[in-house]
Amino acid sequence: MVQFALDYAGVAVCAISGALAAGRRSLDLLGVVVIAIATSIGGGTLRDLLLDRHPVFWIAHTGYLIVAIAAALFTLLYVRYFKPPERLLLVADAFGLALFTISGARIAYEAGVDGVVVVMMAVITGVFGGVLRDVLCAEIPMILRKGHIYATAAIAGATGFVLLKNFDLDPTVPALAGMAIVVGLRLAAIVWNLELPVFSLQDHGRHGDDKKGDD
Amino acid sequence: MVQFALDYAGVAVCAISGALAAGRRSLDLLGVVVIAIATSIGGGTLRDLLLDRHPVFWIAHTGYLIVAIAAALFTLLYVRYFKPPERLLLVADAFGLALFTISGARIAYEAGVDGVVVVMMAVITGVFGGVLRDVLCAEIPMILRKGHIYATAAIAGATGFVLLKNFDLDPTVPALAGMAIVVGLRLAAIVWNLELPVFSLQDHGRHGDDKKGDD
Amino acid sequence: MVQFALDYAGVAVCAISGALAAGRRSLDLLGVVVIAIATSIGGGTLRDLLLDRHPVFWIAHTGYLIVAIAAALFTLLYVRYFKPPERLLLVADAFGLALFTISGARIAYEAGVDGVVVVMMAVITGVFGGVLRDVLCAEIPMILRKGHIYATAAIAGATGFVLLKNFDLDPTVPALAGMAIVVGLRLAAIVWNLELPVFSLQDHGRHGDDKKGDD
Repeated sequence: MVQFALDYAGVAVCAISGALAAGRRSLDLLGVVVIAIATSIGGGTLRDLLLDRHPVFWIAHTGYLIVAIAAALFTLLYVRYFKPPERLLLVADAFGLALFTISGARIAYEAGVDGVVVVMMAVITGVFGGVLRDVLCAEIPMILRKGHIYATAAIAGATGFVLLKNFDLDPTVPALAGMAIVVGLRLAAIVWNLELPVFSLQDHGRHGDDKKGDD
Repeated sequence: MVQFALDYAGVAVCAISGALAAGRRSLDLLGVVVIAIATSIGGGTLRDLLLDRHPVFWIAHTGYLIVAIAAALFTLLYVRYFKPPERLLLVADAFGLALFTISGARIAYEAGVDGVVVVMMAVITGVFGGVLRDVLCAEIPMILRKGHIYATAAIAGATGFVLLKNFDLDPTVPALAGMAIVVGLRLAAIVWNLELPVFSLQDHGRHGDDKKGDD
Repeated sequence: MVQFALDYAGVAVCAISGALAAGRRSLDLLGVVVIAIATSIGGGTLRDLLLDRHPVFWIAHTGYLIVAIAAALFTLLYVRYFKPPERLLLVADAFGLALFTISGARIAYEAGVDGVVVVMMAVITGVFGGVLRDVLCAEIPMILRKGHIYATAAIAGATGFVLLKNFDLDPTVPALAGMAIVVGLRLAAIVWNLELPVFSLQDHGRHGDDKKGDD
């Protein structure tokens, strides 16, 4: 029950973030709902397809879809009258990222895959929805440009989860520790505006828009 | 037999629409064929992956692929000599949308999933090919921007299909009624230029390209 | 053993090409690694999902992921001090394309699907990673614009493979012949700058950004 309530909260937070992002692209009402759904269930869907887990989580439990749609509609109404509470949403989003990431890690771990695949699935569950949102908005995904320690927090938390699973601990310990790492890193990145260095390759004799390996 | 003929017609219409869209992006000949294939089989492919239906429809029946490729090549030749019949294509496309949407609804319904998932699968089958086409052309998908009641028609038709399935009717009735709803709404939207309202969030103190929940 | 070594070499080449492409988009360090992973394992992943082959190749053998990550990190370090060897990379990339394409063809052939699906899976395995790289960079995929006989070489090689499979030959012959076709065509295209004709549809009375079949 607690698990479901947390999952639904995570879905709602992601849907709200998706709806707000869509609002900055002047989409129509349905487009906003579609982006909200894609943002909130995209990561878990790709994880389930890759791990061959069927039925996919939102097909098995339609509550996820309904929460995502309701959160998107609520956002549409809310921003008509009020300013979105940006600080609160950033914090809620950090918790949403932690919940998604560690739930992805746990599902992958239980599927018996290697540690590195567990981390990969955790990151996919945590951030792929946002990637999908940005691709649908025809933008380079935020997490690739300067993610402000977004996917990095997911990687660190999932790695902590995997490492702690090697010890004989109560099963909730690795999950809680992993979530704490994600939330901690993410909030620290927001407060101190931390970023990974940008990698730029402009002065090496390649011009225009031609690409290595394609032409 | 009739089913296959209708399906092939739907695939051909989608492939033509994809090829024409590609023609406006100055792609090379192969690029046009790839876009045509993606537009015509993308929706059904995602539906089959999500519902774990294997082999995927165009792997089971290669006729779909061949029809899509043939329609794309035909379009390439046709537009070299003639102006595409735009009105006719819009009408054909409305029927293609109806066919795809309701065939997706029927397949999902027979898989025994919930009503809301049936509608979701119907919409995916009907419109995801077009989304893929636009993403490959590095554009915000048409249906999200101002879809002119495109996905909305699919949602309405699929919902009609699901509701009518609750009654003890001949199995063709919900399918035909669903298709009639899609075609009717879509043609009405074309004739009267109907659109969903656009949702825009520009004046709430967010600037530039930064995004909620990511930084 | 030889097979794995070749596969790993192909993954490394694709990851390097992905990392270099990412370097031209000013992504952060993690973004570069993500693009490198997507470029190198994207094609095989889509092939495995479509053919329902589980576990997906990089879940079954985590070496692929590790090679991709290592190659991306190596590239990040290398270009800090040296100019990338562009000619060598183009040649390596041609071999990578051949390896991926023909390994995709062989896997699809062994899954017992039709010849046209074998070619499709071969092309997906060979080029979808690069498509994913470009979509994540919010660009129209290179192979659709003017691919310099890139996907075309994959189609030709895979078709050669399928045709030769009809004869009673040693199983290595179709594979080697297919790879030779891919490498030969690709290198010829690089040397003589060959391209497919571009298909453009601008003068047929369509204006602005409206699209056939969507409005």
